[in-house]
Amino acid sequence: MIEALLNPRSIAVIGASREEDKIGNVILKNLLTQGYNGKIYPVNPRADEILGLKCYPSINEINDEIDLAVIVLPAKYVPDSVRECVEKNVKFVIAIAGGFSETGEQGRILEEKILETIKNKNTRVIGPNTVGIYVPRYNVNTALTVPERTALPPDGNIAFISQSGALGLLTMDTFSEYGLGISAFINLGNRIDLSETELMEMFLNHEESKSIVLYLETIKDGRKFFNVAKKVTKNKPVVVLKAGRTDAGIKAAKSHTGAMASNDSIVNGMFKQAGIIRAYSETELFDYGKALAYGKPLKGKRIAIVTTAGGLGVITSDYIVAKENGVNLELAKLSESTKNEIRKVIVPFGSAENPVDLTAEGSTEQYEKVIEILNKDENVDGLIVYALFQTARVDRSLMEILEKYTKQGKPMVVGILGSKFGKEMLIEAEKRKIPAYPSMERTVKAIRVLYDYGKYIERDG
Amino acid sequence: MIEALLNPRSIAVIGASREEDKIGNVILKNLLTQGYNGKIYPVNPRADEILGLKCYPSINEINDEIDLAVIVLPAKYVPDSVRECVEKNVKFVIAIAGGFSETGEQGRILEEKILETIKNKNTRVIGPNTVGIYVPRYNVNTALTVPERTALPPDGNIAFISQSGALGLLTMDTFSEYGLGISAFINLGNRIDLSETELMEMFLNHEESKSIVLYLETIKDGRKFFNVAKKVTKNKPVVVLKAGRTDAGIKAAKSHTGAMASNDSIVNGMFKQAGIIRAYSETELFDYGKALAYGKPLKGKRIAIVTTAGGLGVITSDYIVAKENGVNLELAKLSESTKNEIRKVIVPFGSAENPVDLTAEGSTEQYEKVIEILNKDENVDGLIVYALFQTARVDRSLMEILEKYTKQGKPMVVGILGSKFGKEMLIEAEKRKIPAYPSMERTVKAIRVLYDYGKYIERDG
Repeated sequence: MIEALLNPRSIAVIGASREEDKIGNVILKNLLTQGYNGKIYPVNPRADEILGLKCYPSINEINDEIDLAVIVLPAKYVPDSVRECVEKNVKFVIAIAGGFSETGEQGRILEEKILETIKNKNTRVIGPNTVGIYVPRYNVNTALTVPERTALPPDGNIAFISQSGALGLLTMDTFSEYGLGISAFINLGNRIDLSETELMEMFLNHEESKSIVLYLETIKDGRKFFNVAKKVTKNKPVVVLKAGRTDAGIKAAKSHTGAMASNDSIVNGMFKQAGIIRAYSETELFDYGKALAYGKPLKGKRIAIVTTAGGLGVITSDYIVAKENGVNLELAKLSESTKNEIRKVIVPFGSAENPVDLTAEGSTEQYEKVIEILNKDENVDGLIVYALFQTARVDRSLMEILEKYTKQGKPMVVGILGSKFGKEMLIEAEKRKIPAYPSMERTVKAIRVLYDYGKYIERDG
Repeated sequence: MIEALLNPRSIAVIGASREEDKIGNVILKNLLTQGYNGKIYPVNPRADEILGLKCYPSINEINDEIDLAVIVLPAKYVPDSVRECVEKNVKFVIAIAGGFSETGEQGRILEEKILETIKNKNTRVIGPNTVGIYVPRYNVNTALTVPERTALPPDGNIAFISQSGALGLLTMDTFSEYGLGISAFINLGNRIDLSETELMEMFLNHEESKSIVLYLETIKDGRKFFNVAKKVTKNKPVVVLKAGRTDAGIKAAKSHTGAMASNDSIVNGMFKQAGIIRAYSETELFDYGKALAYGKPLKGKRIAIVTTAGGLGVITSDYIVAKENGVNLELAKLSESTKNEIRKVIVPFGSAENPVDLTAEGSTEQYEKVIEILNKDENVDGLIVYALFQTARVDRSLMEILEKYTKQGKPMVVGILGSKFGKEMLIEAEKRKIPAYPSMERTVKAIRVLYDYGKYIERDG
């Protein structure tokens, strides 16, 4: 079902324009030039041809099935346009324009008209007041970004549903810096029809999406959301950044998306029961989404740390066990045989205790052996490995080892500090689907989330 | 006093070597090729010339005053070498080699010998077991990094004292990605002589250092540290990442730097009384150091937010007022006249309430006017401005406005999301000494630290 939206065989652009810089021109051009492989049909009664494509006076004149129609017309024309899409049996409609309920009563009436039109029909509407969707795998992009100013992420495994378009684009731009990949981005906008709940359910069966992350200021139908989430999280992790959690936030959300107040402790309880991981910032949202997409659920609290810099071991130990400014897990007590084996591998002035410190003399080979040894120790539930490329004996083949153990070994997250080589290796980690983070705090919080999800799965999964 | 260390007129490298890749060769080469402007004297009895410089058999043979001697000899030769430095009246000695107390009793005895040698003399020792110092302004660098793998930060205003060398280099590498500048980096190593306390005191009168950040696993002399810190913080902000705050961290620190246990609640109380800002991660350490170096102390809790993306306003409002997952400040209630003035500036569907939302139609000019209006409102103590360059009407001249108000206006921190243009502008912000951060959480935490420091100054300053 969701395939027709994310990988449409045909897209109609209703309100396509010959005038450069007009939204109906830019969206068409983006589809044409960014590699979309399906058929594109511009619709505009006052043009025969736009950007070299035959133009149709109305969608009904197109002699083909339409999976997706993007309506770029101003608000007042949208209800009629949607009606034509329904008659044509278009599967998905994205209504881009603002000027609906977010602006007042007149806009609200326009939304009601659209809802009447699609009632009991097969056509589903995204928006209105939305930047639409972005699907890197199929080069489907209806978002109007300035390419020199905004980067969009590559193909990956995180499905991203955002109530806010700007916030969605801004965060995707930010995380593109480290090459984070997404399977799809969908901006709900005013979500008069398709909601976060239905999309979450659709993504449950979307193979490429390994985790689902949502930015929400309000939840459309709490009970339905809860019931669907409970089902989804048993098979696919869900992370939600639910803003409007304080009076000040609710007030701000109200002027932003017309949100209604909701009691945050109820939201919190509902998320916990439904196995939803809660994020409090855009960084957590994507960090957690990545940990859960690439990593494995963690069944116990006992973490082993591998580092070549002792200080990282100290700070990380604190952060793992602390209840305040920490994540309240435990440091694994390594068995005597594990410590003996490690001693044979590392230099004499290194540490075979947890945190295991290879020291600046640590080599790629030592990393591999130590990770292997720790994977065999029954006292270890999960690993944090700091892959530090600043010293001479560590080379990029460490990434292969980390990829191997991400797939085969115990739950593991990786910390990679640095800018030059470090940054390059963080991007490499993304390609290899290793959950890696550029700070200690983010690394430790990521393994905590694997634990939270692991506990939930064990109990309810 | 500290000038002789940070900007030495002359440096002797004792144990300079002709053999490439030897530490005594690399340190000399780094001083020669990285732009250090003072005189360099290689010392080695078995060479006449190294890297084109006249080589001296001993430091006593040099016919010049020596500000700084870098001893790269193995541990067992260091006490004798230090004695020669004392005889020569060298001001500062950096003893690079490991193999001292961190390896056991024999090493401890070597350290005692050094201490006896310098007792009641003018020569001060940094280390041993240290990577030494890095001072970008004067191109003084004794740290042995692989330049292709590790970036070092440019000149700036944060003095960085680190007990651990590797952690110091790793974090500087990491923060170089966004161009963060430092005034000096000093690695304490085994700190048998010069301690964090004395260095902190020296940096108090170091003009270029606007804030002092420290990474410590242990505090050498708690009482002295407390008394000096109390004095320093009244004039210059101090941020400390004190690791070893849990049993697990203390155990890890013990194997790393031979740390003794300290009660963390005592440390916490001491920091609070002494006006020290506490960081719990490397990110906080530098984020806070930067906020305090570039920003102004905040005297009240009432924060105004400016954004062009509503979602950022919502998340930030939550984060400002929340006690959990937030910083427990307040949203400013804007006066009616402020709101009226703002309404005249922004588009009708924007928000003149706090958070002020210029919307995607927001322009550089609108930013300027709104920041000006908020600066005049008595209900506003400080500002968070999201400078978002993803939309077409915002251009790079916004940075000039932000620089102007960082200097002239109320306390302000800036959030800049994004990768392409955003990343470039974050680096630009560093150059202009605007406290800017690439995430909302980091932005809000930075303004909280301005408040904590402001309260301390108001009470004790």
